[in-house]
Amino acid sequence: MKAIVIHAAKDLRIEERLEETPGPGQVRLRLATGGICGSDLHYYNHGGFGAVRLKEPMILGHEVSAYVEAVGESVTGFSAGQLVAVSPSRPCGRCKFCLEGLPNQCLDMRFYGSAMPFPHIQGAFREVLVADAIQCVDATGLTPGEASMAEPLAVTLHATVRAGGMLGKRVLVTGCGPIGILSILAARRAGASEIVAVDLTDFTLAIARRVGADRTVNTAVEPEGLAGYTSDKGAFDVLYECSGAAAALATGISLTRPRGVILQLGLGGDMTLPMMAITAKELDLRGSFRFHAEFAVGVQLMRKGLVDVKPLITHTLPLAEADTAFRLASNRSQAMKTQIVFPD
Amino acid sequence: MKAIVIHAAKDLRIEERLEETPGPGQVRLRLATGGICGSDLHYYNHGGFGAVRLKEPMILGHEVSAYVEAVGESVTGFSAGQLVAVSPSRPCGRCKFCLEGLPNQCLDMRFYGSAMPFPHIQGAFREVLVADAIQCVDATGLTPGEASMAEPLAVTLHATVRAGGMLGKRVLVTGCGPIGILSILAARRAGASEIVAVDLTDFTLAIARRVGADRTVNTAVEPEGLAGYTSDKGAFDVLYECSGAAAALATGISLTRPRGVILQLGLGGDMTLPMMAITAKELDLRGSFRFHAEFAVGVQLMRKGLVDVKPLITHTLPLAEADTAFRLASNRSQAMKTQIVFPD
Amino acid sequence: MKAIVIHAAKDLRIEERLEETPGPGQVRLRLATGGICGSDLHYYNHGGFGAVRLKEPMILGHEVSAYVEAVGESVTGFSAGQLVAVSPSRPCGRCKFCLEGLPNQCLDMRFYGSAMPFPHIQGAFREVLVADAIQCVDATGLTPGEASMAEPLAVTLHATVRAGGMLGKRVLVTGCGPIGILSILAARRAGASEIVAVDLTDFTLAIARRVGADRTVNTAVEPEGLAGYTSDKGAFDVLYECSGAAAALATGISLTRPRGVILQLGLGGDMTLPMMAITAKELDLRGSFRFHAEFAVGVQLMRKGLVDVKPLITHTLPLAEADTAFRLASNRSQAMKTQIVFPD
Amino acid sequence: MKAIVIHAAKDLRIEERLEETPGPGQVRLRLATGGICGSDLHYYNHGGFGAVRLKEPMILGHEVSAYVEAVGESVTGFSAGQLVAVSPSRPCGRCKFCLEGLPNQCLDMRFYGSAMPFPHIQGAFREVLVADAIQCVDATGLTPGEASMAEPLAVTLHATVRAGGMLGKRVLVTGCGPIGILSILAARRAGASEIVAVDLTDFTLAIARRVGADRTVNTAVEPEGLAGYTSDKGAFDVLYECSGAAAALATGISLTRPRGVILQLGLGGDMTLPMMAITAKELDLRGSFRFHAEFAVGVQLMRKGLVDVKPLITHTLPLAEADTAFRLASNRSQAMKTQIVFPD
Repeated sequence: MKAIVIHAAKDLRIEERLEETPGPGQVRLRLATGGICGSDLHYYNHGGFGAVRLKEPMILGHEVSAYVEAVGESVTGFSAGQLVAVSPSRPCGRCKFCLEGLPNQCLDMRFYGSAMPFPHIQGAFREVLVADAIQCVDATGLTPGEASMAEPLAVTLHATVRAGGMLGKRVLVTGCGPIGILSILAARRAGASEIVAVDLTDFTLAIARRVGADRTVNTAVEPEGLAGYTSDKGAFDVLYECSGAAAALATGISLTRPRGVILQLGLGGDMTLPMMAITAKELDLRGSFRFHAEFAVGVQLMRKGLVDVKPLITHTLPLAEADTAFRLASNRSQAMKTQIVFPD
Repeated sequence: MKAIVIHAAKDLRIEERLEETPGPGQVRLRLATGGICGSDLHYYNHGGFGAVRLKEPMILGHEVSAYVEAVGESVTGFSAGQLVAVSPSRPCGRCKFCLEGLPNQCLDMRFYGSAMPFPHIQGAFREVLVADAIQCVDATGLTPGEASMAEPLAVTLHATVRAGGMLGKRVLVTGCGPIGILSILAARRAGASEIVAVDLTDFTLAIARRVGADRTVNTAVEPEGLAGYTSDKGAFDVLYECSGAAAALATGISLTRPRGVILQLGLGGDMTLPMMAITAKELDLRGSFRFHAEFAVGVQLMRKGLVDVKPLITHTLPLAEADTAFRLASNRSQAMKTQIVFPD
Repeated sequence: MKAIVIHAAKDLRIEERLEETPGPGQVRLRLATGGICGSDLHYYNHGGFGAVRLKEPMILGHEVSAYVEAVGESVTGFSAGQLVAVSPSRPCGRCKFCLEGLPNQCLDMRFYGSAMPFPHIQGAFREVLVADAIQCVDATGLTPGEASMAEPLAVTLHATVRAGGMLGKRVLVTGCGPIGILSILAARRAGASEIVAVDLTDFTLAIARRVGADRTVNTAVEPEGLAGYTSDKGAFDVLYECSGAAAALATGISLTRPRGVILQLGLGGDMTLPMMAITAKELDLRGSFRFHAEFAVGVQLMRKGLVDVKPLITHTLPLAEADTAFRLASNRSQAMKTQIVFPD
Repeated sequence: MKAIVIHAAKDLRIEERLEETPGPGQVRLRLATGGICGSDLHYYNHGGFGAVRLKEPMILGHEVSAYVEAVGESVTGFSAGQLVAVSPSRPCGRCKFCLEGLPNQCLDMRFYGSAMPFPHIQGAFREVLVADAIQCVDATGLTPGEASMAEPLAVTLHATVRAGGMLGKRVLVTGCGPIGILSILAARRAGASEIVAVDLTDFTLAIARRVGADRTVNTAVEPEGLAGYTSDKGAFDVLYECSGAAAALATGISLTRPRGVILQLGLGGDMTLPMMAITAKELDLRGSFRFHAEFAVGVQLMRKGLVDVKPLITHTLPLAEADTAFRLASNRSQAMKTQIVFPD
């Protein structure tokens, strides 16, 4: 079978790998679609990020949908040909954090396509994938492209759960890449009554409006576009900071009302924060990392038509054009979510 | 002007009252639509409920929309002819609870159409109503019938806020009168991923499905219809008990999972509870009473098309037929929400 | 070795049992002290409670301290002669609730001395006990009697955690048996600024004052003693209902302020509740069941002198007088906590 | 009467001011003791901090106790000679935040001794002070020095409330000035089971141990002294960062466990944060600002002997030596809390 393997920055190869056999509790899957995520792009463009660096070839990918081919011993509830969304999260189920109900904090996590431990955790961009049945969620009725959006959707659902009750809240989203756009969908699904989205390109803001943002502001064009939200110490109850830019975070903090919640989802390394505003307005800056139960929730919400991710999927390319897909995905003023379709 | 006045059980009269003049901060409104609520029906059918009894004639009504006619001194933001939803909640703004952010617990509340204090707080079913501007929420774009649903919608939005985060939760609603149906809408808006509704009549369950319940069970017809939800100590994260029947509450408790939340919205006086189940499953039984900020939120959600209350409005009668309207509304297997239209 | 075995109501026997051998991860313990709990007394006096009935002989006891005698393979951190408090809670560590961080809701719990499953879970009142090392908490510096109080203390610490922040709160405790008294200690340790305790006997109220209650009221003698706490809808933020009497719960509810929390710790089967007050004051009635992490916390707090349980231990008898001890413990106007000392 | 007035950095004068007369709802107080706070020292040493600068002479001081001299119309519950702690917090009681139960976020706050608005809010270091009765809390039984500690104690009680439940938590305090030391007292009172305190001077750490820190680490002497707390992603549930140093915050973050809470109490302007750790461990960084209800709670806790602030009061000087007192207080390796005693 073929797999998409990163060897070093800009060195992406389609290589042959041996197919695996499903053991007890496992399923053999034929990959349908794989979405390219920001961390995939970091490996592709820079060979890693921060302290996380490639030290050996690694199969990329963790946003995938697939068709069930065969099931191992003691697996029930799946049948050949069924479309499933595959969670890349594989906590150990035995460590301190797993037993505290925090599996995303697992001390022995094996998340697909991560160069953090060595040997690296190989990813899911491969024609045949053997996974635990527990990773697979029935996606019948969805397109493979939608099903592979379950993973980034889960990231924003988890962040939204972390924010607490969202019903009737006013929300600001800074940065409208895929995580920003999915945050709009998640916040709306959770009951936000007003959502303002900010970015520097009209391409992304058009999608923001399409998925339900009440208002968008291109601060490159309209630098004073948010001035109306500063009275009474700030208008927004919740800030999803999805740009990773310190300036966006500082602006967002100035527009967040006392006791508001700030979710920092854009990864930008160390950031300088206006601590005085955080203290004086008693803001809550809450980290949010990956997801757990929210993966299946996301699939369920999509299947019921309660969340529609289709407007995000702007580009779809075949496996053979993987390198083109990665180059395309790297240009975020041109591509929202780029997906790779695996051969039947 | 004319008003709908209750004198005693079954003694409803349309009477003349003097019109009031708006003072500073007030508006004069011409009533558009008034919805009949369960508490109105208690006065109509029984002269009160529990310790709350009619002791003098009282104008009924607290679910109303109206057109602005004139504004008092220092009122801005309203213009003649504008449709508004009128909140019946008038907290004092000075007592201990108002200053704790709990105005619905106000020690000097003057809620429209309440026989609790004496003299009674007169209600809003009158052709001309003088209200505080702060009670009025712009309802432009809604029908008067929808606008007058803001009040019961706010009750269920408040309960949903009390339940905490709802995103991805499994919800059971027992009792599908107007509050039950609006609970389905509120829970869905707040992100519930699965909603099961229970009642004893097909009429109400059909509306439950129309507003988005994933499944309905008529336990009069299908007594074992909920048997599938008992495994692992119960399937539901949140129970909205809207029937006021102890049996429904007991069933709901048996189907609520450990650490689940029970919102008791149906008023049924003293109730006998299976305390052992509450203790052993560590359930949270949370009272929820009226609303405050949720009134304006409800109007906003309706105006944005995020909540659609139209399926509830089953009957609309003119003021002259008020008595018929009250009799009709009293039969809940025939009428969901009955509204009275006031003359232009 | 000898064990205290209940055969039926009033049929308590000291019998010979075979000693077990510790496997990997286990320790062999020589029992030091065992406290008699309310559930032990239900088996002793009535052969069970509610649907839980004795169906075979069962060793009683789950409040125990012991000396380490030997450790099994791969056990570290324990040495012979060390005093430990032994948690009776043995969750499976694999079920849905264990993996959600709710081990006290384990679907396969094996809690010492429980007649709920059949075969029953045998208890810990035996001279030699083989336990998992993870059940044992170092109790060096405590008396064996104090160490065996870790279990009921953990029950009240868990309830206090369930109540949320306690700092500066006003607390009412109704019912001053051991759980009521320990609730006073737990609430005080967690920062309650005012604690009022209520009971019907002076014996228990004297202990309540000794452990820190600011005020006690014997409502048998002084029926109007709580009248001063009714203004503004009620004075107390938190109610620990530890009597199991519906009248006490109703009184407590009437004295609890809006948005207050009610912890029902006294087990009294079905109870009739004033639901209207719960709704109108938006009270939170929260179930609390056993404990988990709080067991070790309790030992730690006692060892640091931050919680002093000694005033509760009113009677200590040798193993040979177990039946006398059970009779004594059954009279709660005479005995607070009765403990059995096992032979060296 | 005399008052302590700051004119500019290092220009502190004792000046004559006119005495005021108490109006309805007010009391006239004779000052007993005033504690020097960090913000007083910023005015004294630097003429302000950040954007807050002295623009006119201002009476300093907001940590005060006083004796009642006379009461205005309609004031009850106070008698001449009574010692009271005087809250410097004077919210308007009418703005949006006051009505949300967030008076410390009041849009029209008049907090004693603040140069933020202009004209400045004059402070409380004056022989005769006219205050609202509602600011005064009975401090009978406390020394005047203890009573004047109610204000900084309230700051740390409020932060502790913001942290949520503290029972059984492991706490790290970085920076052991008065706020750090009071954080130890507050965390312990709220049930923390383990408290580790860090500073760079032995003087402050000795006081930390005296008020109950389980362990202290002088990182100037013992740079690796915290190495034992890094396993499993960090040992502490809650971090009180009271130094205002970015390095201390970064260290604290590395030692805080997943889902832990960080309270930033030390004010140090903009700070650079390791956002990746906040995200990956899903930490909560919570601002905490001043206090409200906690002022009276603090007095109550001190009066009941549940919090003992006496070990903090290291220096007491008469009004005539105010300048010396300010110089002394500026050296935090020599003075913990310096207080000024006003003449009888």
